[in-house]
This record gives sequence, C-alpha cells and structure tokens, in this order.
Amino acid sequence: MKPIHRHDIASSLVLILLFLLSLSCSTKQPSSAPSSTTQPAPLASWKDGPAKQAIVAFVKDATDKNSPKYVEPADRIATFDQDGTLWVEHPLYTQAMFALERVHALAPQHPDWKNKQPFKAVLADDQEAMGKFNESDWAEILGATHAGMTNSEFLDIAKQWIATAKHPRFQRPYTELVYQPMIEVMDYLRANGFKTYIVTGGGQEFVRSYADRTYGVPTEQVVGSSILTKYEVRDGKGVLLREPKVFFVDDHAGKPVGINLFIGKRPHAAFGNSTGDQQMLEYTQGGEGAQLMMLILHDDADREYAYGPAGGLPDTKVGTFSQELMDEAKKNGWIVVSMKNDWKRIFAFEN
Amino acid sequence: MKPIHRHDIASSLVLILLFLLSLSCSTKQPSSAPSSTTQPAPLASWKDGPAKQAIVAFVKDATDKNSPKYVEPADRIATFDQDGTLWVEHPLYTQAMFALERVHALAPQHPDWKNKQPFKAVLADDQEAMGKFNESDWAEILGATHAGMTNSEFLDIAKQWIATAKHPRFQRPYTELVYQPMIEVMDYLRANGFKTYIVTGGGQEFVRSYADRTYGVPTEQVVGSSILTKYEVRDGKGVLLREPKVFFVDDHAGKPVGINLFIGKRPHAAFGNSTGDQQMLEYTQGGEGAQLMMLILHDDADREYAYGPAGGLPDTKVGTFSQELMDEAKKNGWIVVSMKNDWKRIFAFEN
Repeated sequence: MKPIHRHDIASSLVLILLFLLSLSCSTKQPSSAPSSTTQPAPLASWKDGPAKQAIVAFVKDATDKNSPKYVEPADRIATFDQDGTLWVEHPLYTQAMFALERVHALAPQHPDWKNKQPFKAVLADDQEAMGKFNESDWAEILGATHAGMTNSEFLDIAKQWIATAKHPRFQRPYTELVYQPMIEVMDYLRANGFKTYIVTGGGQEFVRSYADRTYGVPTEQVVGSSILTKYEVRDGKGVLLREPKVFFVDDHAGKPVGINLFIGKRPHAAFGNSTGDQQMLEYTQGGEGAQLMMLILHDDADREYAYGPAGGLPDTKVGTFSQELMDEAKKNGWIVVSMKNDWKRIFAFEN
Repeated sequence: MKPIHRHDIASSLVLILLFLLSLSCSTKQPSSAPSSTTQPAPLASWKDGPAKQAIVAFVKDATDKNSPKYVEPADRIATFDQDGTLWVEHPLYTQAMFALERVHALAPQHPDWKNKQPFKAVLADDQEAMGKFNESDWAEILGATHAGMTNSEFLDIAKQWIATAKHPRFQRPYTELVYQPMIEVMDYLRANGFKTYIVTGGGQEFVRSYADRTYGVPTEQVVGSSILTKYEVRDGKGVLLREPKVFFVDDHAGKPVGINLFIGKRPHAAFGNSTGDQQMLEYTQGGEGAQLMMLILHDDADREYAYGPAGGLPDTKVGTFSQELMDEAKKNGWIVVSMKNDWKRIFAFEN
C-alpha cells in the first residue's frame, strides 16, 4: 500500500469531519431563538383539538419561509394578558389582594384609617362594603399602598409578599396558580423565535416583581399600567419615587397604545380572556402574515372557576368575558379555549 | 509500514477534529449575544488611550464571573443618547430638519401658513426668526408635522424622508453621519451579551423609522419622547392615531424615568453628550457592579464640529455640553471622549 492511499483516507476523514463541523455549527446559527432545553413534547397539557391545532398551525405558518404567512424572526411578537389568561383572577385580582393586605400591614402607621373609608371597610373586612368599592376607592387604596416610596423599595415589598401570600381557596402561593398550558404556549412560541410579552391592565412594577421567575418574561417585556415616577437624587444616588398619580392605563384601547409604545410592532399572536383584551386582539388581527387570536373561557368550576358566558359565579369586577365578547370572537374567528375541554391539566401541581 | 499506523493517523485526526468541533461549537453557546460575524478587531476606529481602555476594562469586569463587578447577562443593559452621541446634531437636530422640510411640503394644503407664525418664518427661510423659536413655536411645528395621521402613515413619511434628505454640510444622508466608533462600541457590547438601547430626547417613532437599519437597534429598544396616540378602528382595522399632544418627554430627569418605564433595569453603561444626559449617567452610576459612564466632547471642527467647552460654534439649542456638565464629569469620574484625540476616524466613509 502506497503512502498516498493512507493520505487519502486521512483526507477523506478530514473532509467528512469538516463537513460535520460546518453542519453542526451552522444548524445553531440561523435561529435567533434560545435553544430549547430537553423537554417533554410541546403543549403536553393541551388535549388534541381545534385549539391546540390552531396554535401548531400558526407556528408552522409563521416559521415556514415558503409560506405566504411567514413572519421574519424580528417581527415574531406574542402578547399575553395576565389575570385570567396566565393565572387565576378569582375571587380578586392578585394585586388587589396585595393592596388589601398592605392596608392591614400599614394600618398601625395610620390610626385615622379605622374611621376613614375606604380603609375602614378593609380593616373591618366588610365584604359587602368592599364589593361596592368604586374606582376612586381603589385609587385611594392603590395610592396608599403602591406610592410614597422608591421603586426599588416597592419591588422589595411586592417580592416579599408574593413569596409568602397564599390563595384563599387553593392555599398555595399565587405563582403556583399559573396555567400550565399557557406556560407551555409561551415556551413553544419562544422555542420558535417569538418574543413573549405580558400586556396587563395590572401594575407594571407589581408584575415585574415575579414575571421573570414565574413566566420567564424579563422586566423589559412586561407592559402594564403605571403610576407616575419622579427622578430624585437621594444620598448621592439617583432613585425613582412612586407618586400617587396614574400615568398610563394599559387596558381596553390602552393595550394597543401600550403595545406600540413599548414594542413598536404589531403582535402576531395575542391571548386574553376579557373585554379588556378585545382591542389587543383586534389590533393583532389588523396586521399581516400568520395570526393567532385566543380567548380563555373559564368554564371549569371543579378545577378552577366558571364565570362569564359559562355562568356559575355571580358577576364580579373580574373576568368580564361578556356575551358581546363571545359574539365578537365568533364573528372574527378568534379561538375560544375551553379550560374544561381543551386543557388536560390546569396547574403544574395536578397529577 | 503496518496498517495499524495508518489507522493511528486517521484516529488522531478524528480526535483532533472532534476536539475542534466541540471547541468551535462550545464557544458559541455560552453567549446569549448574536454571534459576531467576521469583523476587524473590536473598537478599530478608537485610538489606544484611556477612553478605549475604559471600555475594554468595563467589558472585562462585566463578563468575568470571578470579578466582584460581574454582571449577569440578563442585566447587561447599555443606553445611548442619539443626537450628538451616535450621530451629528449640528447645525440642527435631524428631526428638526425633518419638521421644517415637512412644513414646506405641507404648505400648499395650508395657505394660511404664509401669514401665520411660526410657519411664516419657516416658509420664508427667515433664519433669524427661526433662531428665536421658543418651545411653543416648536410644539406648533411638531403638532402640524408629526400628528393628525396614523402611526404607520407617519413611519412611511419619515422613512421616505430619511432615505433622500441630505445634511447641508456633508451632502450625505443623515444615516451615513453616524459615528463609526460608537457603532463599534454598540457591536462590541452586543457581542458581549449587552442589550443596547437608544434613549433619546428625540421622537421615539421618528428614531424607530431608521434605528434598526442604522444602529442594529430594534423598535422595542428605542426609548424616546412621544406624543399621545389614540386607538381607533378604521375600515375594520385597528390603527393608532397620532394626536398633537405631548405624552412623555424623555430628556433630563425623564431619561431615568423612561429607562425604568421601558426597561425596568438600571443600565451598566450609559453614553451621552449633553446636560440632557446627566441624569441618565447619574442613574447608571447609582447601581452596582461594573459601570461605564461616557460623554462625547465635540472638539473636532475639521472632521465634525467643535462646541460646548471646546468652544468654536456660537451657543445654539443643540449640544449643550456646559461647563457645569464638564465639572460634574470630573467629580464623578465619567469618561470624556475627545472626538479629536480618541477617534481615528469619525465616519465610516472616511479613509
């Protein structure tokens, strides 16, 4: 055997490995998405059905370069309402629970609250009076509990509360009451190059205090309602003071406004569960390319709650999935997700 | 020669190449930054000196897990003022040029402007009168040129203008008048896992109309001043209307407010060139871990302009790098970058 043969074998191996090397590395490059870690099949908590199929078909269209509905990676924006869409909103929004408990915690510093509404009703746990709180009552409670401190002080208080508070029915931390199927949708979209945003009527900083840990959504991808902040230098350090004055309301028509303000792109997927989300879904549908508009219907009194068109609970301030919204969904072809029929499990802690 | 030798050579090659393969791929994984394409050395347009050294030392600290100044990838935020920091701001802000040219373009639809200030002065090109425009004059011009249309109509107008307009001195598109050394800083920071944000006193949508192409900064990373927008359904499609009313001013103390509102994290690096950036640099310095605060000094009348403490041009509305700001920089240890002495070249089109 001549040396030239040996050389040939080695050369071939070099060529094959160089090819593998280029292949192995190049497969990592085209996707700007974080590489998905080893996980069970996507959307594992979804039953096979039209809702799951719609999500899969949407992602296929959005990521298929040969589809007329293809969406460039930089434009892959998905927006999620939070309360009632990503986690439980009954019997009260979690942030309202936080505000009420803060009134109790702060009461010793405000002896006058015992005789002053709306604080008096909160301190006396007067459910009937609290059920009748109007917007200005809530504004007063929010002002007293969410302002008058620096932003980082507020974040510390919120983080501490969320780490220990428990939901009255489930007796678990609120952050365990996230809907596992929706976490899977977020994961699935991110694995396909989407940026996932929370677009909530709730307080932006409150949601930021747990969004990264709970949903994998960083602070810069939380769009929400906010109060005015004021820049000040304290002890030689620049801080932001929270003022008892509303700056932006990210609900109803405010959602498209907030989406444009913070993101500057029209979403291709939007998820909600109430009339406060209608304009966000409309705005999403006004764009081009692949689209997915979804509404979560609370129709599972056993595992979670039933309200809205699914009846059940009395009318409360939360979860206003009106009949008009249901009609709108049908007219526009939005997907209505039945918690009862489309979700194998609702919470991660279920078997 | 025995076959076993041939086998050994091949095996060794396989092992070496497998090693290269693992190395080549693993070096791409730890960074969440987009892999930098084949480029010249980073910061190639910077002269060796204290400014360049400060940037390199900052990145070394921020990315070294063993450094007490290490910054987690999710917290690697860098903010850049635009006018005078990333591109030329003399003789007028580019957006003011845009507004004035829009007044001319819209004049046929507004015959009354010929006799109505501030439009009369603009249409007559009365430099003296325009030099004396106050805030309310500019507000009127902005209202007439930046509002009264949908957001996407405005973006189209801005894109069309920026594609054709030329700077009066350089006779080049404004987007070619970006500072090459600053583009290199942005690239270098991104290659090291930083998210780069523009934080401008200028109009958010105006800057968004070219930021991605010009700076590699996507719309969601442009923080700026904004006017009110209103959601409306037109021809069955949700759109945002621009109203002639200021919503947010992202300048001076508004910069830290805007940074918290849009990003929710304190930057680790901040770049500016005027008193409007002082609070942003202060706010950055109030954080923990590696920090870099930089001010660009315009002291190169030959290649660009000289103004502020570098003297030269008469006092105008632009580039207010005051002596007080210089004193503040010295007191706080902020790096002042001399365009003349620290930059080998200012524009990409220079040799």
